[in-house]
Amino acid sequence: MRLPATYHVRATASDIAARAQGIAVEQSVEMPLDAIDEPRVLTEIVGAVEDIADLGDGRFAVRIGLALSTFGQDAGQLLNMLFGNTSLQEDVVLADIDLTEALIALNVRPQHRIGELRQRMAARHRALTASALKPQGLAPERLGALAERLALGGLDFIKDDHGLADQDYSRFADRIPQCAAGIARAVRHTGHQTQYVPSLTGNLDHLRAQAALARDTGLNCIMVAPMISGFPAVQALVREFHEMVVFAHPSMGGLRIAPDLLIGKLFPLIGADAVIFPSYGGRFGYSQQTCRRLAENARGFGALPVPAGGMTLARAGEILDFYGSDTMLLIGGNLLQARERIPEEAEIFTRAVAAHVYA
Amino acid sequence: MRLPATYHVRATASDIAARAQGIAVEQSVEMPLDAIDEPRVLTEIVGAVEDIADLGDGRFAVRIGLALSTFGQDAGQLLNMLFGNTSLQEDVVLADIDLTEALIALNVRPQHRIGELRQRMAARHRALTASALKPQGLAPERLGALAERLALGGLDFIKDDHGLADQDYSRFADRIPQCAAGIARAVRHTGHQTQYVPSLTGNLDHLRAQAALARDTGLNCIMVAPMISGFPAVQALVREFHEMVVFAHPSMGGLRIAPDLLIGKLFPLIGADAVIFPSYGGRFGYSQQTCRRLAENARGFGALPVPAGGMTLARAGEILDFYGSDTMLLIGGNLLQARERIPEEAEIFTRAVAAHVYA
Repeated sequence: MRLPATYHVRATASDIAARAQGIAVEQSVEMPLDAIDEPRVLTEIVGAVEDIADLGDGRFAVRIGLALSTFGQDAGQLLNMLFGNTSLQEDVVLADIDLTEALIALNVRPQHRIGELRQRMAARHRALTASALKPQGLAPERLGALAERLALGGLDFIKDDHGLADQDYSRFADRIPQCAAGIARAVRHTGHQTQYVPSLTGNLDHLRAQAALARDTGLNCIMVAPMISGFPAVQALVREFHEMVVFAHPSMGGLRIAPDLLIGKLFPLIGADAVIFPSYGGRFGYSQQTCRRLAENARGFGALPVPAGGMTLARAGEILDFYGSDTMLLIGGNLLQARERIPEEAEIFTRAVAAHVYA
Repeated sequence: MRLPATYHVRATASDIAARAQGIAVEQSVEMPLDAIDEPRVLTEIVGAVEDIADLGDGRFAVRIGLALSTFGQDAGQLLNMLFGNTSLQEDVVLADIDLTEALIALNVRPQHRIGELRQRMAARHRALTASALKPQGLAPERLGALAERLALGGLDFIKDDHGLADQDYSRFADRIPQCAAGIARAVRHTGHQTQYVPSLTGNLDHLRAQAALARDTGLNCIMVAPMISGFPAVQALVREFHEMVVFAHPSMGGLRIAPDLLIGKLFPLIGADAVIFPSYGGRFGYSQQTCRRLAENARGFGALPVPAGGMTLARAGEILDFYGSDTMLLIGGNLLQARERIPEEAEIFTRAVAAHVYA
């Protein structure tokens, strides 16, 4: 069985056939085929060029059938065989993969829990709202107080900034109870079940301990950065903590892998329920087309797209119109700029989202 | 205390100051500074633009002092704060970091063991030799037989192809004893202490179990791919198995981080004794300048540079002249093309390296 992977390759028409074959070999046996004397390896293991299409701008779309048997059951090996060595070659972008049922069954966990959270938040149909705890450098109590003020505005999710880790000035074990308590105080006031999403970092031992602490603190959500923690660690974590809603952060995701594939398909494949990504029109350069595809891909897995990265309250309507209601809109710094008016500004945000009439 | 990190940024002269400040903020507090009301965060946590130099080709070298306190003790967080979100921006390359003693002390393990291996192999001064077990898809016994034939040529190191993982057709637990036994048979014949370097994959649990199996099989070396396993996992593994020599493979290393930094500095920082990289003149596009810097950076940590990726016996002399003797030359596919003459071809390789007179 083979997984069709599409690479976009810069090449001339006369070179592309050889270049395509080169990628097929690099991503499978990685050696000259004339040195392989086992026929089964040549037929069953070596990548097969299935199609080459001229994209018309000096690039070609090359579809290669990669042998599923080379992937094993580890999500890290999936990355390795999809793009490991070829990631080092500047003329190639991994554009898309056609996820087979077999691969999905191997990796994805059986149920995602966003629907359940929607229900608890009485948000059956509207878009969801989120903000972020920043800046790092604040002591846990101050982060807890900030979490409370954001939650007073009735936000659905309040996540850690991805820079919050286990630093001396803010230990994970101190920070999580403080932020959870801050949000709990607000929830008693608002009645809205705002969820705190702590960012987990470190190796699998650390991730496990932090996820357990989050769970023991009564939290339902966690955030991980798969490109930093490693796909294998995230895969293990989401299986073990299958009752937690998993947010994936794109930190270190700047490879030559199309973002709509990496964030929109691969992150949900290994277990993300919500995928944070830098939306068009913010501080990052993703195009509208990339963002739309990314969001659609994520929803195809039952995962919520979370546009972020410099979103503003002033643009909320436009962003919602673009992404539709099956979206979680994350506004971080722009809300924090309200300073002493953070609860009020957060409430304006949540009301605007709830009242939005889609164009 | 601050870590100076240099980014190469595409920008116009009128934009670069704002762009540099944007990176300094993105890689620290990631929010508008006017929303930060704690003076200590502004002075001690926010990244500081220390220098901007025009590189003359539409790019600028921007040096930013990143607060060491934001890094904590996790190598994943090191990556996160160096380049996490900025990796998503196409106009920026992380070019270099000036590793402080503090950071080195935090991360690197106290002793690397290449010198000891050199001694055991009676290779005090000459370059070291290596080859790779391929193709994946072969059963463990066949890989073991191939390992034996390569080792009969007197190679110093025989590593797994990085595609060998824990696949159905070749389970790690079956493969490692077979390859180790094959090499042991050859060692009894040659008297040369050829070392087998198995590739470890999967999450930290898997990595630990595989490293333990390698150690229990009497092996001294292991290989990991930090960009797939994750920096945090590699950091934990090399600490726990500090007696093993660690090879780092660059799979999935194709980010906008200069290879001489990523492979030459960061891989050794987290514990690599030998760093495999795609040398100029092979299947990959690294320039001679990149390769030279990478090799020099690695040696600065006491790590051996291992040029690879399409090296050939015919080019051995030229490659050795370029890199010098403090190098491990890895020739994979080209040796395997000798097929039934693999032991003889491997011996020609090892003799050529031993006899090489540097230009």
